[in-house]
Amino acid sequence: MAAFTARTGKRVRPHAKTHKSPLIGRMQLDRGAVGLCCAKLGEAEVMTDAGIGPLLITTEIAGEPKVARLVALRKRAEVMAAVDDMDVARALSDAMRAAGIVLDVLVDVNVGQDRTGVRPEDAGELAACVASLDGLRFRGIQAYEGHLQHVYLEAERRLGWRQCADRMLTAREQVTKRGLPVEIVSTAGTGTCAFAAELPEVTEVQAGSYPFMDSDYAQVEGLPYESSLTVLASVVSRQRGDTAVIDAGWKAISTDAGMPVVKGRPELEYTTKGDEHGGVRGARMTPGERIELIPSHCDTTVNLHDEYVCARKGVVEAAWPIAARGRIQ
Amino acid sequence: MAAFTARTGKRVRPHAKTHKSPLIGRMQLDRGAVGLCCAKLGEAEVMTDAGIGPLLITTEIAGEPKVARLVALRKRAEVMAAVDDMDVARALSDAMRAAGIVLDVLVDVNVGQDRTGVRPEDAGELAACVASLDGLRFRGIQAYEGHLQHVYLEAERRLGWRQCADRMLTAREQVTKRGLPVEIVSTAGTGTCAFAAELPEVTEVQAGSYPFMDSDYAQVEGLPYESSLTVLASVVSRQRGDTAVIDAGWKAISTDAGMPVVKGRPELEYTTKGDEHGGVRGARMTPGERIELIPSHCDTTVNLHDEYVCARKGVVEAAWPIAARGRIQ
Repeated sequence: MAAFTARTGKRVRPHAKTHKSPLIGRMQLDRGAVGLCCAKLGEAEVMTDAGIGPLLITTEIAGEPKVARLVALRKRAEVMAAVDDMDVARALSDAMRAAGIVLDVLVDVNVGQDRTGVRPEDAGELAACVASLDGLRFRGIQAYEGHLQHVYLEAERRLGWRQCADRMLTAREQVTKRGLPVEIVSTAGTGTCAFAAELPEVTEVQAGSYPFMDSDYAQVEGLPYESSLTVLASVVSRQRGDTAVIDAGWKAISTDAGMPVVKGRPELEYTTKGDEHGGVRGARMTPGERIELIPSHCDTTVNLHDEYVCARKGVVEAAWPIAARGRIQ
Repeated sequence: MAAFTARTGKRVRPHAKTHKSPLIGRMQLDRGAVGLCCAKLGEAEVMTDAGIGPLLITTEIAGEPKVARLVALRKRAEVMAAVDDMDVARALSDAMRAAGIVLDVLVDVNVGQDRTGVRPEDAGELAACVASLDGLRFRGIQAYEGHLQHVYLEAERRLGWRQCADRMLTAREQVTKRGLPVEIVSTAGTGTCAFAAELPEVTEVQAGSYPFMDSDYAQVEGLPYESSLTVLASVVSRQRGDTAVIDAGWKAISTDAGMPVVKGRPELEYTTKGDEHGGVRGARMTPGERIELIPSHCDTTVNLHDEYVCARKGVVEAAWPIAARGRIQ
């Protein structure tokens, strides 16, 4: 991903919600990232505490307690926010103006994920509203298509991307025809950034999963990234015959994207056994025996743990805190 | 639950895997609990650091690194372990003997959950093995029926309990006929402890969820405990018409037992929107508006957070660290 900018001319703003680690964020910046994305204010606070920035908070910020935190954060950090609502924009404007500061803003556009973001045809109106408000500076649009990242077939994913790109271009046109410059068009994840690179209007990608990948991303055609993240587990019981019981359940590894895969042992199959245990089927195993599990979803698994144990060729070289773990507001 | 012992004569050894908090553990001990259960060694280490005990580690401990940690822990704490394997028992015996200490042991019996534990008819042989080994002291049996806790209908749950109780009594008989005293019979959770109290052979229950409960346990007939645990969330976007988007997704609240329930607002329905977001359907909501979510599964939700914010009648009185959060090995 570090070579992506050189190859495509697009900037990379990696999403820190995946790793939640200032140390990994620092490595991404050192390798050319233009800044980091954070999912939540809490994540951005941790990154700022560690001297990491500039930051884009990709989830909308609303409500007095959060706005007050955003003001405090903006005073000490270069932070940009996503907005999809005029009332929220006005509240942010009031708070920033009262504090005597200015917040950079991207207008969040719904390009098909149907989660947050204005309709493409409404992007111009919201951009004009933001641009007219003191304390806010309109910088561009955010158009993230999270629903496409895990579409396995490349042709199908590309087709979906084209539809999202059309909506993004509609939104951009709605803004430019009001005479506003669209300096930033921030979009795409690990599964779609190669497509986004082909579109001149895109300025940056928000890929997050590429440093780790996971067993679900491994099924997505055409991605050049390798899996680096595993959960170390060990057998606690062999009483169940062909299914050994291990010490990794829902509290150790997420299953929202399916079952983990046992690394290097394709004959073994993980099964759910509750919050503290997992089952492993396919071979007779011995209590104490260790296996490595590749999570089905890196983000939700990382969020369960307090540190990365970093190993190279079987030798542990470092332990990195997952400093923003649990910072979900 | 504090009155359970007085009413039934059975001891309570609450499971700390639910709350992972030494402060709550201390309250349970102060209210008559005979000790605490821990799911894992890491949990027991945190409880011991906080001066909480005695402890029963309910998951089998195997493999050199864990056995070494158990020896270190046993040197400074009153800790009992569950065993379901002769080879593991011998390894524990060797380690304890080498350290010049003695470990209390329960033989773990599979009474129907089909996870860990020997078959009831093999319990006597394993108990005799444990009793014969230096460094180990046989204390009784563990027979936990986790698969019954969430059977909603009371009659069906009671029927299931009878079957498990028969297996438990078979195991107990296999031990006593070898001339070994069964000082402890540890069983039952929040959903079955009332049934377990009716059986003379049961000495203690391992209930864990009762301080918090959850929306799934709320559907279990006949339990006297109320829900006390919620996740505070707020609306970040109202762009989706009848579905508002909130800031609580898989990283904030678990969905392994189904969707959370919105407290006090039965017209609202939570829907999954990924790791950082949730959807709430059923009313027009405003960005910044707050709701409280009752988790479907307390254990896995607690494990996502670093502290409890404790409120009484809407006033925050304390923040308690979830000190053993993430200690899953």
